[in-house]
Amino acid sequence: MRLTVRSRLRYRLDRDTQIAVRIAVSDAEQHIVEESIDSGDLRLGEASDAYGRLFRASAGAGDLTIDYRAVVENGVNDRLTDAAMVAAWEDLPVDVYPYLLPSRYCPADQFLRFATREFGGHDGGAKVLAILGWIGSHVDYVSGVSDSATTAAETFVDRAGVCRDFTHLAIALIRAGGIPARAVAAYAWKLDPPDFHAVVEVWLAGQWWLLDPTGLAPVEGLVRIAHGRDAADIAFLTTSAAVTFVEQAVSVSV
Amino acid sequence: MRLTVRSRLRYRLDRDTQIAVRIAVSDAEQHIVEESIDSGDLRLGEASDAYGRLFRASAGAGDLTIDYRAVVENGVNDRLTDAAMVAAWEDLPVDVYPYLLPSRYCPADQFLRFATREFGGHDGGAKVLAILGWIGSHVDYVSGVSDSATTAAETFVDRAGVCRDFTHLAIALIRAGGIPARAVAAYAWKLDPPDFHAVVEVWLAGQWWLLDPTGLAPVEGLVRIAHGRDAADIAFLTTSAAVTFVEQAVSVSV
Amino acid sequence: MRLTVRSRLRYRLDRDTQIAVRIAVSDAEQHIVEESIDSGDLRLGEASDAYGRLFRASAGAGDLTIDYRAVVENGVNDRLTDAAMVAAWEDLPVDVYPYLLPSRYCPADQFLRFATREFGGHDGGAKVLAILGWIGSHVDYVSGVSDSATTAAETFVDRAGVCRDFTHLAIALIRAGGIPARAVAAYAWKLDPPDFHAVVEVWLAGQWWLLDPTGLAPVEGLVRIAHGRDAADIAFLTTSAAVTFVEQAVSVSV
Amino acid sequence: MRLTVRSRLRYRLDRDTQIAVRIAVSDAEQHIVEESIDSGDLRLGEASDAYGRLFRASAGAGDLTIDYRAVVENGVNDRLTDAAMVAAWEDLPVDVYPYLLPSRYCPADQFLRFATREFGGHDGGAKVLAILGWIGSHVDYVSGVSDSATTAAETFVDRAGVCRDFTHLAIALIRAGGIPARAVAAYAWKLDPPDFHAVVEVWLAGQWWLLDPTGLAPVEGLVRIAHGRDAADIAFLTTSAAVTFVEQAVSVSV
Repeated sequence: MRLTVRSRLRYRLDRDTQIAVRIAVSDAEQHIVEESIDSGDLRLGEASDAYGRLFRASAGAGDLTIDYRAVVENGVNDRLTDAAMVAAWEDLPVDVYPYLLPSRYCPADQFLRFATREFGGHDGGAKVLAILGWIGSHVDYVSGVSDSATTAAETFVDRAGVCRDFTHLAIALIRAGGIPARAVAAYAWKLDPPDFHAVVEVWLAGQWWLLDPTGLAPVEGLVRIAHGRDAADIAFLTTSAAVTFVEQAVSVSV
Repeated sequence: MRLTVRSRLRYRLDRDTQIAVRIAVSDAEQHIVEESIDSGDLRLGEASDAYGRLFRASAGAGDLTIDYRAVVENGVNDRLTDAAMVAAWEDLPVDVYPYLLPSRYCPADQFLRFATREFGGHDGGAKVLAILGWIGSHVDYVSGVSDSATTAAETFVDRAGVCRDFTHLAIALIRAGGIPARAVAAYAWKLDPPDFHAVVEVWLAGQWWLLDPTGLAPVEGLVRIAHGRDAADIAFLTTSAAVTFVEQAVSVSV
Repeated sequence: MRLTVRSRLRYRLDRDTQIAVRIAVSDAEQHIVEESIDSGDLRLGEASDAYGRLFRASAGAGDLTIDYRAVVENGVNDRLTDAAMVAAWEDLPVDVYPYLLPSRYCPADQFLRFATREFGGHDGGAKVLAILGWIGSHVDYVSGVSDSATTAAETFVDRAGVCRDFTHLAIALIRAGGIPARAVAAYAWKLDPPDFHAVVEVWLAGQWWLLDPTGLAPVEGLVRIAHGRDAADIAFLTTSAAVTFVEQAVSVSV
Repeated sequence: MRLTVRSRLRYRLDRDTQIAVRIAVSDAEQHIVEESIDSGDLRLGEASDAYGRLFRASAGAGDLTIDYRAVVENGVNDRLTDAAMVAAWEDLPVDVYPYLLPSRYCPADQFLRFATREFGGHDGGAKVLAILGWIGSHVDYVSGVSDSATTAAETFVDRAGVCRDFTHLAIALIRAGGIPARAVAAYAWKLDPPDFHAVVEVWLAGQWWLLDPTGLAPVEGLVRIAHGRDAADIAFLTTSAAVTFVEQAVSVSV
């Protein structure tokens, strides 16, 4: 699909602050037709890293406004089947293997017994689909019950959260089930209300497959921004000091 | 220093188990004079990744014994001074930047206020040294009060732990203070009783500096195995299923 | 002091809900000159229990409004001195002894090592005053960083919170130091902005002593509502189902 | 049943230590035919409180040995039926009402959504029996995976534990379901291996009913020691400082 994505971040900074921004779409798996990023007088240093594209800057106190726009031919790999099988560890690419390990918001090590008991009868793609099915029928999408510190263990107890929480819980359970999984930040066509979206990618049959544990947006309409171990790696804005939210706007159109 | 290191891992496996082993010394920052690894009939697949050297295998049920021996000219960078300064985020290498982020056992995001209040008056190397000094005078080295699930937040409350816990707390506080920090697994000369050791590396003045928050072994006698976000990345043994400990032996000699 | 206290609770209930209200001033340690409580058509069942006075009801869906007003001669015991000593356990009244134990928001068992190291050189009243002094200089009063699930261990890491958090942290540390401590809900003269207040009571020298870990209101102007192990016991409103906040107003005048 | 119970506690104390012991059987709901407690030279102060019988002492450094023996006609109320109904809050005795609230190891407040979703279709006795059935089929009895700090939320994630953990999880879920529940320490006939046992009591139809979430011992063979909010209230030994375990022996015979 050819999609136009836009986002605007506006924050107020009380002091000189280091910032890192991930709102530009990834150029690895999709084609960027055109693109612009406008941060006013603030010069953003661009770099590509293992997780996507990173814009960093030393911002002074005052208002921070960043406008981004891109036209993209996306192309996500979204047809995971039951039959896709997990590789032996030694056959995993070395940059895939770490996505089996626990991370800040996805303490997979705490879910080994539950994953074995509940999903141990399934393998590979069937196991991933069983986990997403379980989440869909056991966790409610509710705003305001979680925050930026909420882990998958807390969501598992509370049984409610937003896309970030669904993604963390899915990743924790999939890793506990022996399958590499990572978090993906994306622009999401038809997501209502429009916002940055967090979804999941699993490694099976030699490739990454994209899945949305919330089911709130069609996967074929996702435009990838970045991937990483969990929300810590793919935050649209990371800052060295507390900042004040002013406005955030996201839109996606065909 | 030229050091001879040895380790032996013995475990009992109840079923077919995927294993990943990090006991071979790193070849990136030090010179391996000679080396051998013996896993009996089990073929270990060797790979180098972003964290060190990784040996992986699909092991069958039964006894697992791995013997490792190396002679190494180590060469650690251990002379961190007060004056070493932190870089602006945009000047950090992209593979260093993630070591500012929270991880499974080092929830740096929870310590922002404490780090600012307690260490905010220091910069760069002086801040790192102040943090290690604080840990040394506020946390007791005690075995048996922590386990493989213990986070830096729990150690901060409990005020006791082992090398792994000291390392996690140091990393969390240093990252909260705006300085990249990572965990390093090492063989440690003069560590008593002999064991794998966990220490800390910080990025200042354009390079990584090695530090031991426990002060239990001379840093110049450390032989690096692997580095990573925290213990999850650098475990000497990771397995896909629970295994039974039989024996572990480590030795280091000049 | 003779003080007039008023409070109004307004909530919206979506369904039949069991409610328990603790807003009426305690009649145990102070003299109620006059008092009224108005809950419209809803009949409140009044009872006295080990924690204060309890008003309970089965409320139907719709608006819930409760107005309370009292004129009280208060009389708090607020002159704790360094010299007040802790009793041997067997000399504690049996209804005081449980205030040594950990509770939902005050996991005193986690602070034994810290309390011993930091405050072990003090005894009795001097220890309590040292703990309150430590809190005053290490924890910031900040709204919005904690919620109704926040424990003393979380506040100890985060180093910020509101009166409830200060009270929980003080209780956890005091109990860890071997001194009975409990939470007290109160109307607070000169508290700005006006609200229900949470403070601490410690058992020393054969009686309970009232203290305000936040220092935000003069202790002699506190009018006691209830006491208990922590906020769970003394909540001004407990409900069997989630309810929607509409308005809450509190005032205290001489 | 007429049962003979015995227990022996042996600990080593490094310094003067305050102790509180709950090993004597309760005299409230059962008949004590004969009884002896022997603590050597250490004088134990006996008291009855809201939770059972409490023996307290100031013990000096050295060995602590306490032997207890009793012959009891027990009489537990163990025939809970589906039909037993929960009372409106205002009809609960004031000393029963607090058993609806969260406590140290039973954070019922975190389970409201899960309890409503999973057990909301049941009422009263049927709900309690559904919760115990769910625990029996979703949690494994495993030693060594939990410790004295483990909460019901951790057990809910880990899905394994011992009698204490089963009891805490059952209490948290039952309270979250709107039914008063408390922890009971007991001697348990036919428990193998013999040990102190932790079970659950729920308030329905105007009385307390005893239940064993582990199903490891016949409820009619339980001899009650104490009840309370959770393990913190009913520990067989509470001490003011860390002590060293030497020996513990429990036996129950007809």
